Amino acid sequence: TRTINLAVVAGDGIGIEVVEQGLKVLEAAVAGSDVAVAPTSYDLGAQRWHATGDTLTDADLEAIRTHDAILLGAIGDPSVPSGVLERGLLLKLRFALDHYVNLRPGKLYPGVTSPLANPGEIDFVVVREGTEGPYVGNGGSIRTGTPHEVANEVSVNTAFGVERVVRDAFARAQARPRQHLTLVHKHNVLVHAGHLWRRTVEAVNADFPDVTTDYLHVDAATIFLTTNPSRFDVIVTDNLFGDILTDQAAAITGGIGLAASANINPDRTAPSMFEPVHGSAPDIAGQGKADPTATVLSVAMMLAHLGYDAESAAVEAAVAADLAERGDRVRSTAEVGTELAARVRG
Amino acid sequence: TRTINLAVVAGDGIGIEVVEQGLKVLEAAVAGSDVAVAPTSYDLGAQRWHATGDTLTDADLEAIRTHDAILLGAIGDPSVPSGVLERGLLLKLRFALDHYVNLRPGKLYPGVTSPLANPGEIDFVVVREGTEGPYVGNGGSIRTGTPHEVANEVSVNTAFGVERVVRDAFARAQARPRQHLTLVHKHNVLVHAGHLWRRTVEAVNADFPDVTTDYLHVDAATIFLTTNPSRFDVIVTDNLFGDILTDQAAAITGGIGLAASANINPDRTAPSMFEPVHGSAPDIAGQGKADPTATVLSVAMMLAHLGYDAESAAVEAAVAADLAERGDRVRSTAEVGTELAARVRG
Ligand SMILES: CC(C)[C@H](C(=O)O)[C@@H](O)C(=O)O
Ligand SMILES: CC(C)[C@H](C(=O)O)[C@@H](O)C(=O)O
Repeated sequence: TRTINLAVVAGDGIGIEVVEQGLKVLEAAVAGSDVAVAPTSYDLGAQRWHATGDTLTDADLEAIRTHDAILLGAIGDPSVPSGVLERGLLLKLRFALDHYVNLRPGKLYPGVTSPLANPGEIDFVVVREGTEGPYVGNGGSIRTGTPHEVANEVSVNTAFGVERVVRDAFARAQARPRQHLTLVHKHNVLVHAGHLWRRTVEAVNADFPDVTTDYLHVDAATIFLTTNPSRFDVIVTDNLFGDILTDQAAAITGGIGLAASANINPDRTAPSMFEPVHGSAPDIAGQGKADPTATVLSVAMMLAHLGYDAESAAVEAAVAADLAERGDRVRSTAEVGTELAARVRG
Repeated sequence: TRTINLAVVAGDGIGIEVVEQGLKVLEAAVAGSDVAVAPTSYDLGAQRWHATGDTLTDADLEAIRTHDAILLGAIGDPSVPSGVLERGLLLKLRFALDHYVNLRPGKLYPGVTSPLANPGEIDFVVVREGTEGPYVGNGGSIRTGTPHEVANEVSVNTAFGVERVVRDAFARAQARPRQHLTLVHKHNVLVHAGHLWRRTVEAVNADFPDVTTDYLHVDAATIFLTTNPSRFDVIVTDNLFGDILTDQAAAITGGIGLAASANINPDRTAPSMFEPVHGSAPDIAGQGKADPTATVLSVAMMLAHLGYDAESAAVEAAVAADLAERGDRVRSTAEVGTELAARVRG
């Protein structure tokens, strides 16, 4: 028997509900095979912080490191000051475990209604850098709360960090039928960071001569995501631009209820982490209203990352079949999970 | 006779073509009144840079300062290294002339087809901060071009700078029927800058008790611009987020061919600047294909700023009538300008 030694960080709000369904479908995907799932729940998030003041201790982190992968629900609650859990838990995991490839597919499945009048075929993937840029936490303020306050945020970009994610994006583009890579940045304003990204894409292209490339400013990218999303194959971009574009990508492909993501450490020096793009949605938490599909698709990405390609394909096929037939049926979070699990079992 | 002493910076590419039509409509708007337009053209942009190496000299700037307003076409050309004209000319004008309110309406006119399936009524305005944030040019790189390069970009935000633009946005919200203001930022990650913005909106709200407010992270804002743009009335946001959101806003309201903007110095210590949101579009430059409507709507914003409310309304009404009737007729840049001018004359 092979075992998937899984760290489960359900987190806050609907995170708890969707992760339960993700695990249900994961169990279904390995049922009857020689693969077993051994989940360990980590009590992290708003409740733990209120009780202990901890977001993610060194001990938590070392324990999590021992797993094969992490399934994360959602982090954040209005009862906790903004930034505390995001920086102290979610981003700390991404940074500490060197998740430098934040992979977010933008795919419009048959049967899903896009808010765009003429969406066309949408099937791209955003490779969002995960460990640099404006997310590094190198900001600060002086004279805080006075009329003379100055608050700075520093975006840090390194040749090392940009090259490794660009290389990963090229490899993904090379493996896809269209073999196209779009760099998104804002190099006419953020000239130093932007030119580093641009030079890196040009240089790495030499190692992937089959891949064609183009460049878009981030503002123009939001236009094309509205008017012609079919033009995109692989997008590579920085941490903040990737955050923005992937929410827009989710919106045009049926909403964040369907948007999966993978925080990958391609060097496998630490476990990768799989999570829906959506947040903890406190407004609907605990009501069984959340769509667990994004989490289930994130489970499919996890299975693929761990080398279980057939199981991954079965989960994605179950979701695709469910989406093709769901119409406007209203189902609870658990009902969707149960039906997806049944489809996976076949 | 009153005179509008106008600086004209046509700039590059289609900028030259659209500004010509903007001036045509401006002349029509004041024809038969006691208002005269005295335009002075400034030779700025790619050609000047190639010929002299200048982007905007002190002498240029001092000359431009003497005008009542600036009409700008578009800046940027592929023959000039990225950032040179953007930073050295366009942003230099915005910063030197203290255009801290960058006003960009998002309005879907009757007759215009939105790429959204169910756009609903779209009528909001983005108040984009214009003199701070990641646009300040406080970046740099070390070991440039080596594997050890570090490229930083610094976003600078001050209580002074944030408060003045937030105050302006509240005043605009107060004057609109819905009296609603949405702050867009990313305060769960950019905690220092984000919390400054948030605290400022809370504090200034006390002076505008009729205005209701809410907050969206920038990523969530791109979702609502896709699924429910009617929810927005006034948006206030930082320079970079405003850049991104206003291109998306243009896309959902019919494209950047229609998107107007005003770079306003509300204290009137220097002339304000009016420009279409679109760029120089080198791919279609010189072909008479560009839509001058965005420039004409920017002229309407200029007339309003200068106190010519009736003339401003006449120009906007001409555009609205043209949009309601244009269908898919193909017209040249000059034809659109001529027809709009004729409508303004009545
Ligand atoms: C919760 C937040 C810190 C996070 C981010 O900005 O990365 C989220 O928006 C996401 O995209 O995963
Ligand atoms: C050309 C560029 C510097 C500019 C900006 O980023 O502000 C443009 O995109 C705009 O929105 O006016």
